[in-house]
Amino acid sequence: MTDETIFDLSTPALILDRIRLERNAERMRDKVRGLGVTLRPHVKTSKSIDVLRILAGFESIPITVSTLAEARYFFANGVTDILYAVGLAPVKLPEIAELIRAGCTLRIILDTIEAADSVREFVDAEGVPIEVLIEIDSDGHRAGVGPGDLLLIEIGQQLGTSLAGVMTHAGASYDCRTIAQFEAMAEQERALTVEAAERLRHAGLPCPIVSVGSTPTLHYARNLAGVTEVRAGVYAFGDLVQFELGTCSIEDIAIGVMASVIGHNRQHGRVLIDAGFLALSRDRGTADLPVDWGYGAVCDPASGEVIEDVTVSSTNQEHGIITARSGEIDFDRFSVGSRVMILPNHACATAAAYDRYFVTEGSERIAGVWNRVNGW
Amino acid sequence: MTDETIFDLSTPALILDRIRLERNAERMRDKVRGLGVTLRPHVKTSKSIDVLRILAGFESIPITVSTLAEARYFFANGVTDILYAVGLAPVKLPEIAELIRAGCTLRIILDTIEAADSVREFVDAEGVPIEVLIEIDSDGHRAGVGPGDLLLIEIGQQLGTSLAGVMTHAGASYDCRTIAQFEAMAEQERALTVEAAERLRHAGLPCPIVSVGSTPTLHYARNLAGVTEVRAGVYAFGDLVQFELGTCSIEDIAIGVMASVIGHNRQHGRVLIDAGFLALSRDRGTADLPVDWGYGAVCDPASGEVIEDVTVSSTNQEHGIITARSGEIDFDRFSVGSRVMILPNHACATAAAYDRYFVTEGSERIAGVWNRVNGW
Repeated sequence: MTDETIFDLSTPALILDRIRLERNAERMRDKVRGLGVTLRPHVKTSKSIDVLRILAGFESIPITVSTLAEARYFFANGVTDILYAVGLAPVKLPEIAELIRAGCTLRIILDTIEAADSVREFVDAEGVPIEVLIEIDSDGHRAGVGPGDLLLIEIGQQLGTSLAGVMTHAGASYDCRTIAQFEAMAEQERALTVEAAERLRHAGLPCPIVSVGSTPTLHYARNLAGVTEVRAGVYAFGDLVQFELGTCSIEDIAIGVMASVIGHNRQHGRVLIDAGFLALSRDRGTADLPVDWGYGAVCDPASGEVIEDVTVSSTNQEHGIITARSGEIDFDRFSVGSRVMILPNHACATAAAYDRYFVTEGSERIAGVWNRVNGW
Repeated sequence: MTDETIFDLSTPALILDRIRLERNAERMRDKVRGLGVTLRPHVKTSKSIDVLRILAGFESIPITVSTLAEARYFFANGVTDILYAVGLAPVKLPEIAELIRAGCTLRIILDTIEAADSVREFVDAEGVPIEVLIEIDSDGHRAGVGPGDLLLIEIGQQLGTSLAGVMTHAGASYDCRTIAQFEAMAEQERALTVEAAERLRHAGLPCPIVSVGSTPTLHYARNLAGVTEVRAGVYAFGDLVQFELGTCSIEDIAIGVMASVIGHNRQHGRVLIDAGFLALSRDRGTADLPVDWGYGAVCDPASGEVIEDVTVSSTNQEHGIITARSGEIDFDRFSVGSRVMILPNHACATAAAYDRYFVTEGSERIAGVWNRVNGW
């Protein structure tokens, strides 16, 4: 606790509004409680134990990770039930076994016979139990076995006692544009994954875990019959993509990048800031959404309000360029040395450039500094 | 020195071929020697003292940085002549003064009266000498004062004894497509910056330093009369953008991301790898170039050869999707658990996700591990 404010920080710096985070966390806990399932938040967005504690309401809950670096960090911070939700690369089995031997319930996912073979061989050779979920393709978006595919049963049989269930991620939900489409995608994600679980059980195989989720499908889900747990990550912070998809408001976006105005190019109507693509990320997630926010929305950091008509329209490594949609920019509003706060297109991508959050609690004062774990 | 090879590494991992780096370094030193100017490499690409030593031929040379974190790191590693080539944010003046007081010749850049005022006030109040280059707009691309703009002289007068010269970066060179265009852009960059220097001198102001550069303009420059130093960064590693711009060959690209195949989606013709946008970056720099390499070219890590017809066509946070341009992918070529090496669109963006390089010397053996400095 100091008297330092966000205006004392060197720029760029990543700011996290704890009040907004708490509101987002509580809303999701309420939603999931109403659906009667377990929440297993995806910590790839925040990569921070302090953020997880708020998402969990300071209780002990299971988590989802995207890297083994996250698994090691959260386990070291007391989290014992972890799903590593990226398809297995067999080279990682020794790292996975090390966590399991240390007492972590670390489950992995896969969707091929080859990967199932590698797990079986490793388990037989090393004598370490590894629990596996089979990834199901519920949307044609990325990975997974089709729920009706014969391969599903073959993989299940090959896994034997390692089989612990099925999981899916309906990433195609990001292509939905109407509430009816979102609701249909949420139901498709649920129904196809439950169907896969039923097929495995019908074949005499165990399938206690049925895990689904994405922030959009969970936001729009009305019924999760047959599902045991849900995963979502970006809801913690929200971002401009989520705003455009209708899962959060602008006032829910809990992180922003504090930047300084470093120059004016009056001839071309440009305000330059010291947050470029390393500070903001190259993510252009809103490019195909109803409103294109460029590389981010520009806010007044004192009020937190979005400044109308301007966006970060282009970036170089350490330069961001703010221009006006109308073409007319008010340079006096952006004097050299003044600060702006940039709201991200994609919170996971933007936060990944930083090793810490400067935490505020509804004012300019910095109430704390929270670390993140990056890398692999 | 161990017997570990790149195939022993957990994935994703950043590999640096020292042989290629040395070749790129030597070629640039030869080029600059021929032009009769000083080379001030931009270390924002590698952010590594070990890489700089090779760029410098193990001599003491000046450098360019994009962050004060780089300035502190390289100064701590013995580099004493540093240009911080991002327009000044006044909030950083105390950090800059700290380096200067510690003995670093750290110069800064700016292009507004407001920033010049802030430097003058700071210098007067703190008694620390700060040398400044005025940024010149030589291409309408980003920042800078026009060489014929009255503002140039005003800023120079306001800086007084802090004025040390002019600098520019012709980023518009990345929009050139023919050798004639590149050569014209290189000459424009030179001529307008020298013109700005002459105008300052004509007004009785000192302008000893005339600094220009970008990897493309330097590659294509034929004459640098009036220029005292050149800056370039990405030539150290090369990348697919540079290959498409003609400044390097595919065989010059010195870094790649080692990834594992983690799945097959046979229905959609997709091979999944464990390198997504955090491992490869979201950079789509080749999107508008003659050949679009998606998120990267796919190589056989044993031979280093590019595998024809396939690219990383899409990415999520920790997933990359390899597809074939022809639509027909040979899944046997990409068995689950096998490795691929991904060449980056933009070396600076891709390397930024890593805190170290695994260094090879023309074989699979890891000859060393070199650290990087990230953040701000």
